Amino acid sequence: MNVSNDKVLRIGMAGLGVVGQGVWKHLDSHRGPLEERLGARLELYCAAVRDPSRARAVEIRPDQFRRDPVEVATDAEVDLFCELMGGTDVALKATLAALEAGKMVVTANKALICEHGEAIFAAAARNDARLYFEASVAGGIPIIKALREGLVANRFPLIYGILNGTCNYILTRMEAERQGFETIVADARRLGYVEADEALDLDGWDAAHKAVILAYLAHGHWFSLDEMPVRGIREVTLDDMDWADRLGYRIKLVAMVRRDFKTDKVFCCVEPMLLRKDLVLAKVDGVYNGVSVLGDVVGESIYIGRGAGQDATASAVISDIVDAAIDRLHGVPAFMPTFVSGRVAFAPLDEVRRAYYLRLSVVDRPGVLAEVSTITARHGVSIESVLQTPGREEDRAHLVLTTHESSEKQVRDVVADLREDRAVLDPPLVLPMPDLNGR
Amino acid sequence: MNVSNDKVLRIGMAGLGVVGQGVWKHLDSHRGPLEERLGARLELYCAAVRDPSRARAVEIRPDQFRRDPVEVATDAEVDLFCELMGGTDVALKATLAALEAGKMVVTANKALICEHGEAIFAAAARNDARLYFEASVAGGIPIIKALREGLVANRFPLIYGILNGTCNYILTRMEAERQGFETIVADARRLGYVEADEALDLDGWDAAHKAVILAYLAHGHWFSLDEMPVRGIREVTLDDMDWADRLGYRIKLVAMVRRDFKTDKVFCCVEPMLLRKDLVLAKVDGVYNGVSVLGDVVGESIYIGRGAGQDATASAVISDIVDAAIDRLHGVPAFMPTFVSGRVAFAPLDEVRRAYYLRLSVVDRPGVLAEVSTITARHGVSIESVLQTPGREEDRAHLVLTTHESSEKQVRDVVADLREDRAVLDPPLVLPMPDLNGR
Repeated sequence: MNVSNDKVLRIGMAGLGVVGQGVWKHLDSHRGPLEERLGARLELYCAAVRDPSRARAVEIRPDQFRRDPVEVATDAEVDLFCELMGGTDVALKATLAALEAGKMVVTANKALICEHGEAIFAAAARNDARLYFEASVAGGIPIIKALREGLVANRFPLIYGILNGTCNYILTRMEAERQGFETIVADARRLGYVEADEALDLDGWDAAHKAVILAYLAHGHWFSLDEMPVRGIREVTLDDMDWADRLGYRIKLVAMVRRDFKTDKVFCCVEPMLLRKDLVLAKVDGVYNGVSVLGDVVGESIYIGRGAGQDATASAVISDIVDAAIDRLHGVPAFMPTFVSGRVAFAPLDEVRRAYYLRLSVVDRPGVLAEVSTITARHGVSIESVLQTPGREEDRAHLVLTTHESSEKQVRDVVADLREDRAVLDPPLVLPMPDLNGR
Repeated sequence: MNVSNDKVLRIGMAGLGVVGQGVWKHLDSHRGPLEERLGARLELYCAAVRDPSRARAVEIRPDQFRRDPVEVATDAEVDLFCELMGGTDVALKATLAALEAGKMVVTANKALICEHGEAIFAAAARNDARLYFEASVAGGIPIIKALREGLVANRFPLIYGILNGTCNYILTRMEAERQGFETIVADARRLGYVEADEALDLDGWDAAHKAVILAYLAHGHWFSLDEMPVRGIREVTLDDMDWADRLGYRIKLVAMVRRDFKTDKVFCCVEPMLLRKDLVLAKVDGVYNGVSVLGDVVGESIYIGRGAGQDATASAVISDIVDAAIDRLHGVPAFMPTFVSGRVAFAPLDEVRRAYYLRLSVVDRPGVLAEVSTITARHGVSIESVLQTPGREEDRAHLVLTTHESSEKQVRDVVADLREDRAVLDPPLVLPMPDLNGR
């Protein structure tokens, strides 16, 4: 042990809500071994909270409370600034202030990193400061450490995963209880599983934030949410799940980052997709997250764990605090990986090729399949299978098509034409069936 | 970047066989990004090999060859000693010599660490040297980094996994091709999948080496192979797989490290076990490894990847080289985790409680089941289910029992009595059916 036992690492927190209290609860209960490993004490020095009078599970004296996160971030006594308040406004100001002050920063804020990663990493590099963000993607899985360190010998042609526990929980329950989206989502809300800003979970934005972070780690480029297809699970019905099942698939909300190393084009998206049932990730259920990483040296490796929640997130935040403490206590200089990127660009839609699942509500009369297949043929999309079933309402049928590999652009053109077609009653649902060529 | 680009890290290798050549092949093809990240060049300085004249895929000048691994380990020009020769004799001498000389040591040698970990870690601590051994357990999965760093906030009541790719490959093929052990193992030998010392793979010792390392990482204690039940897969038949299937299970060779934090008793073993079909690890097939880690904070997380082979092992060795290079280049002092262990002890056999699968070949006559169940009752073992099927030979039947939770000691006593019973024709096969209470 190279440090004396009277060393102290002072932690300033911004936000002392569910996650913050979880961090201190678990830090306290594991304090002995952690501090023995570090050769230093970990001290909760101060915390910025909105309402100091609120009851909290963490022992903290009134004089330790602050109102302003920036005050905590710049306090000369604070070694490590731990940003757990969320949001991208004050959180950004405070994070940048802490980095400018040369502090170690630990954050679980995926929206912040996704949207302001470039500025934040630049500030860290400029100021010999360091940023730790393991909790921002899949709290229960040390995936960021795996990508940055454990798999450092690899380039990553494909990373895909289930990154939003709420959506996975809802899809799993819909299937298990044979209930529609609205019924299950109402219950998920009641249980507090859905973020206050529901679009984050249900429309795929939370998963997209995480996909952008994984894409940065793998390819060194900050992709913009604007260029990515991002969709949630609102359109997925129990019928779709049944048809997928008949075809040998399960429907999951999947975040995907695929890079063609010949062209250096990267495609990122978050969409409900059909995963072949025998894939490990097709069986990751409930609030669990799962990530598959294809490395050019190591092959495929898969990581499964809880996506979020107080405990999984606290576990990740504490591991970051320990990493930061080791670096600070031993004087490790800032080591920001450079992620040599080879100038990647976002893949144009006509280069994104996948098979697709297409579900249509159509008028129940002869000739409709001919009309539909004329439209697909017009755009060069070839049909692999057709399933026709009567709808619940009279004069309405469902048409479920799967296509051979087609480009995203072709399929969008098909859908645009189908929406114009009188025989097609509702907007078609299109789900990718990616070729994962693996487990 | 804090280091100048003309820095060089000199690597001395011991062994330049399949893995060693893989390390250099992949290091060369990823050299640009790795060296840019490090801010230093990685140089193959010298290598100890048995036969310098052998054809190798690595470019190396005749003057770089050495005969003696200890000479490489103690060469003043060598920064990092990379031990990839295997064995526990010369490898131990060379590893200790390198550590005594204060060098960074990277090794993939699980037998070495399992058998001499205590001496090796002590030498590292004494000499401000560091040991990196990610490649020693499940090359394709950064599990050591996960346990030491990513999950540092946790204590580990249960770690279990499929840690020997060869046995998993054989079991998977037996099931898929409906062939017996001998047929498949002959083919696996032909393909070079079985170690020269076959007992390492087929009798469970390789998995046991890895289990001892995981137990050390989780609990800070070096368990001895002598105190662990270690069995391989030679006794498992296709019939057993079919009966397991009927019961809702698959048979896998499982390494398990279970700790009761109330008593601080640890139970480690490597045995073929029945895993419930719906467990993620029950579906890890072929040469893949899988590890489930239960953390008291994070819950269960699961890691799947290739177990061994040139590429997966090279990926792990390179990540260790990069970690070592960062530590050396930035002057990070030796940081050996202390693994506060709370004085664990090996669990006595009467405290190890599991359900069991028991397969008997018996004389095909009325009354045998009564005899057998009198014996189980005598030792307090209660039967959960019975399956009786005629054997392939006349006058011989199979009796497959599953028990309720019983102690390992009880079951051993039952088996001892059954072996004395005239109606029981062959030694009974006993496989644990662990309660994993999870996914």
